[in-house]
Amino acid sequence: MTVAPCILVSPAEAASVLPATERLHVVDADQPQVSVLDLGVTRGDGIFEVLGVIDGHPQAVEAHLRRLSISAAMLDLPALDLDAFRAAIRLAVDVHPPAPELAIKIVVTRGIEDVGLPTAWVLPFVSHDFTAERTKGVRVVLLDRGYPHDIAARAPWLLAGAKTLSYAINKAVLREANRRGADDVLFTSTDGYVLEGPSATLIARYGTRIWTPTVAQGILRGTTQGDVFDFFADAGYATSEVLLRVDQLADADGLWLTSSGRMIVPIRSLDGVDVPIDRDLTDRALTYLLDRRR
Amino acid sequence: MTVAPCILVSPAEAASVLPATERLHVVDADQPQVSVLDLGVTRGDGIFEVLGVIDGHPQAVEAHLRRLSISAAMLDLPALDLDAFRAAIRLAVDVHPPAPELAIKIVVTRGIEDVGLPTAWVLPFVSHDFTAERTKGVRVVLLDRGYPHDIAARAPWLLAGAKTLSYAINKAVLREANRRGADDVLFTSTDGYVLEGPSATLIARYGTRIWTPTVAQGILRGTTQGDVFDFFADAGYATSEVLLRVDQLADADGLWLTSSGRMIVPIRSLDGVDVPIDRDLTDRALTYLLDRRR
Repeated sequence: MTVAPCILVSPAEAASVLPATERLHVVDADQPQVSVLDLGVTRGDGIFEVLGVIDGHPQAVEAHLRRLSISAAMLDLPALDLDAFRAAIRLAVDVHPPAPELAIKIVVTRGIEDVGLPTAWVLPFVSHDFTAERTKGVRVVLLDRGYPHDIAARAPWLLAGAKTLSYAINKAVLREANRRGADDVLFTSTDGYVLEGPSATLIARYGTRIWTPTVAQGILRGTTQGDVFDFFADAGYATSEVLLRVDQLADADGLWLTSSGRMIVPIRSLDGVDVPIDRDLTDRALTYLLDRRR
Repeated sequence: MTVAPCILVSPAEAASVLPATERLHVVDADQPQVSVLDLGVTRGDGIFEVLGVIDGHPQAVEAHLRRLSISAAMLDLPALDLDAFRAAIRLAVDVHPPAPELAIKIVVTRGIEDVGLPTAWVLPFVSHDFTAERTKGVRVVLLDRGYPHDIAARAPWLLAGAKTLSYAINKAVLREANRRGADDVLFTSTDGYVLEGPSATLIARYGTRIWTPTVAQGILRGTTQGDVFDFFADAGYATSEVLLRVDQLADADGLWLTSSGRMIVPIRSLDGVDVPIDRDLTDRALTYLLDRRR
């Protein structure tokens, strides 16, 4: 068995809906579509990805599908029919009214308990407007993720590094950040390393070196980070995945968060302390990401 | 605003459905009822409880509602209308065909993103048959939960001690237990303390003392454990909540898991090492729990 998704679009958006292929069907996202018996909702037992679509071009599709497959394997889900997902992403873009920036959410759950058939869908929607974050930057606080940095090797059953639907913590830390007057979070390990944001990857610049925390720490491989590393490499920077200690953050010449929606946003303060923003470098990186058309 | 649930029953079961009260409505659990935009399914951003119903009598209702309210507060959800939940539990039992043991699942999610109105439902269903586990016992393995035992005080944003819908880990550890030839799991802290099971509370007997790991460790307060402590106290045992070190487990005269469905099951092996089972004491505790009629 391989898993293939259905596509969810709102009826107004599907006015010119294309005929779904044999294995894909299009349903109304504004109507309830998920069973209360689905382990996706009863146990957060599933995985997801959100990819950006610029002027009709889905970004980093293969990186997202690779990560989705890794998450599926980590959760012992059946193999995914990646061609069906590629077709679903294509169809989702085609059935949605054009917009400069769309997002596509891919979800795979374990399905109805004891049935053994995963539920999968692909949902296109108009992205938030991230202009403010991209230009002014975000205020970030450091929050303890509770795990040592070697958690993934030590306890793979904790699913560190899988992008699961069990994201209640990722939402809770944003509320904690808001209480502290900040916009976003960087997780730290109990033994003093920098990990990732709840929905973003950290990029740090030290002179001509560009670092991101290594995925060996049980964090997600950033799909946008992959592309932005290409930008930095083209621009003459030396890029690498590293173990980054929390105390090294204070010495950075610049910090960014990358993610599929916001693409790249500068961190303008960390725990209330100003972080320098290189406006020109940030703009060039953002332009590079917004100009992707593959 | 307070949150009130709807009740989900299958159409066949609702043949003699009672009129729902003004604030409760009954819908078909076999039809999709949850939106793909609901944070319960997209982020596991919600809370739940499962309570047992014996011969039509819901068990430990107030303990479950107290825990649900604690979880709601930990997730910054709006206050719950507990009277509406009590009425929903009552109605769920009334509309379901009688069975010796039913279960009722209560779910509250944060609702559709950006709308701010939680989704809540109560679902009655026939319990699994737990006869085998109750009589033969379960094989348990110890698995690292990745957190130090003081995680709840240290990092409340990690929601340790809230019963959230983000339970992918709780399912993953059961698959790991199966791979190790076991049935269930006891979580341990990184600093050597015993915590809880993924869906159960540990009870340990040392002579005439009965211990359970303290909820100060960021674990759930067991609702069935509360009742079984009453049984042990009546039977002349001294009950207490403790910090229990992993190395102390080997010295126990008996170990049990308690939960709303299985009620109480003896642990018959721990990491492959036999654990003594006191059949008579287990039977008396089980009879006590099965005879609850409040």
